[in-house]
Amino acid sequence: MSFKNFKCVPKMIFGRGSFAQLDAVLAAERKAANDFVVFLVDDVHQNKSLAGRLPAKTHDLIIYVNVEEEPTTKQVDALTAQVQAFNTKLPVSVIGLGGGSTLDLAKAVSLMLTNNGGSAEYQGWDLINNPAVHHIGIPTISGTGAEASRTAVLCGPVRKLGLNSDYTVFDQIIMDSELIAGVPTEQWFFTGMDCYIHCVESLEGTYLNEFAKAYAEKSMDLCREVFINNHEEKDDKLMMASYMGGMSIAYSQVGACHAISYGLGYVLGYHHGIGNCLAFNVLEEFYPEGVEEFRKMMALHNINLPKHICRDLPDETIAKMVAVTKSMGPLWDNVYGAGWEEKVTDEMLTKLFRRI
Amino acid sequence: MSFKNFKCVPKMIFGRGSFAQLDAVLAAERKAANDFVVFLVDDVHQNKSLAGRLPAKTHDLIIYVNVEEEPTTKQVDALTAQVQAFNTKLPVSVIGLGGGSTLDLAKAVSLMLTNNGGSAEYQGWDLINNPAVHHIGIPTISGTGAEASRTAVLCGPVRKLGLNSDYTVFDQIIMDSELIAGVPTEQWFFTGMDCYIHCVESLEGTYLNEFAKAYAEKSMDLCREVFINNHEEKDDKLMMASYMGGMSIAYSQVGACHAISYGLGYVLGYHHGIGNCLAFNVLEEFYPEGVEEFRKMMALHNINLPKHICRDLPDETIAKMVAVTKSMGPLWDNVYGAGWEEKVTDEMLTKLFRRI
Repeated sequence: MSFKNFKCVPKMIFGRGSFAQLDAVLAAERKAANDFVVFLVDDVHQNKSLAGRLPAKTHDLIIYVNVEEEPTTKQVDALTAQVQAFNTKLPVSVIGLGGGSTLDLAKAVSLMLTNNGGSAEYQGWDLINNPAVHHIGIPTISGTGAEASRTAVLCGPVRKLGLNSDYTVFDQIIMDSELIAGVPTEQWFFTGMDCYIHCVESLEGTYLNEFAKAYAEKSMDLCREVFINNHEEKDDKLMMASYMGGMSIAYSQVGACHAISYGLGYVLGYHHGIGNCLAFNVLEEFYPEGVEEFRKMMALHNINLPKHICRDLPDETIAKMVAVTKSMGPLWDNVYGAGWEEKVTDEMLTKLFRRI
Repeated sequence: MSFKNFKCVPKMIFGRGSFAQLDAVLAAERKAANDFVVFLVDDVHQNKSLAGRLPAKTHDLIIYVNVEEEPTTKQVDALTAQVQAFNTKLPVSVIGLGGGSTLDLAKAVSLMLTNNGGSAEYQGWDLINNPAVHHIGIPTISGTGAEASRTAVLCGPVRKLGLNSDYTVFDQIIMDSELIAGVPTEQWFFTGMDCYIHCVESLEGTYLNEFAKAYAEKSMDLCREVFINNHEEKDDKLMMASYMGGMSIAYSQVGACHAISYGLGYVLGYHHGIGNCLAFNVLEEFYPEGVEEFRKMMALHNINLPKHICRDLPDETIAKMVAVTKSMGPLWDNVYGAGWEEKVTDEMLTKLFRRI
């Protein structure tokens, strides 16, 4: 029996207003006079107050990234080329400032700057050969756990799959709850539910151990404080929930919801957060208590999911989503354990998709 | 306002039986043929089955350490000299296998191998200049949180104080709950209570933030599962409680109990675990609910604390303990906040000590 040697983020700053310390964190990395850093910033922040607070020097590179669509290997390769064209030296740090997609872009670019070829070659597990450029994650929306995880999920030419490696993990994260205060309600909710759903899938899964359980249980409690009790410290609590949800996945795995959400996302382009919610809402047979509580939280926040989005789709579109979903072996193994292949039938998945 | 940039253990293995993976972990550090590692092992394991399972090569150094007394700077300096006399090269890893004291010895030796002078010079905060030798912590008794913390607490010529630095933190920990199964009841209880008391002090303290709170609350819940509910997975849960308790302290601080326990330990030589219990038992005015629950747990496990150990001590002995206890500024600041100096009087402390 072999247990994962879990690589986690080695340095973190937590606190309201701690974004102001980014300058000091970068100062420790800037050694030569011509050292530069790259800021990858979600373009929702462009021309907003946060943009004005970036501790950028004149020779740094700021790139605003658009993440309306899920990040792609193509986008990563283009960003990497842009950094390489900007300066023949490597940057001393790559900073991701945004939600899960932006954080994943920053992770992926920091890896591709030191690993040859295109990022699609590295979709999978432990395919990365060289350590990444120092990289920092700063969430401005919470729930994905991207700040804590060892993956950078990308849509590639063949599949949606992460660059999973120890080198993917951020060297530093800054968790400043002030930054997540202004997120629009739906996005806040969908992204927060990513965390809640992680925890359900993890706690109901066959992979669970006490490490994952402790983190997932606490993360779930925090989600309840945020989405049910409307706690006055809810921004801090959601930030911790997201981080702890990410830590939980280290020794567990997501499940049926993420498998279906991947299918939805890959074929129809749904963003991860809403994709999960759409999928979770038809999974009452898998996660009865979780789905019930999730619907309660939707009602509390007046969230209305789009309806019948798959009902009238052509059979071949459904079949494509079913194929993607079915290919998520480890997720189904976590749901059913050994012998999952017999249980995850095209028929069962097709029925579920038709209900979405 | 400035928030701590918290350095945590970057790699960890959690799981029953995971000690068997130490060999593979060390293989990654052993590069040259003459590379060697140092095992610092609590001498309670000498000639026991665990000793036979050490993945030691012929040119490695195994040292059994006696930790009946709290670790001292003298002991650290002697161990460091022993390693230096063994081989002119530095070891590629120092492994601590034991409880909090042994883990602290391993941290301290790994630091002193790369930092000149005696360890007493480094008692304090951020006094260490050079990174330590790679070091691995493997608890065989849980509760202190030493596996997760950035300190190595040592009794020095002048005071009991830790080597607190980012370099102190283990590079790797292995949390194998099989290793803590055979601990004698009293030691198991006293060390577990170190964790429980950490959490109480942290949650009731002025330094608390949501990061520390989330960890301390979960750690406390886990302690209850272990010490009240006698959960069947209690060894795993205690191991997680200890780790999470240690993580909590990163953004909080211990309080009145540890301050008094340091006084007791320094002057009378009480070990940290039992010292905390002796102190906590007279602190009902500081921590009413915590002390009540603690007494309930003592009763459940038939733990009888020694009584009247300070009642008849000479005034000057009490005064010495009071002085040590009073000098713990940050701990009292965490208890009372600004102005603590006026509240922490000799009279108040003397009264408390006389009740122990």
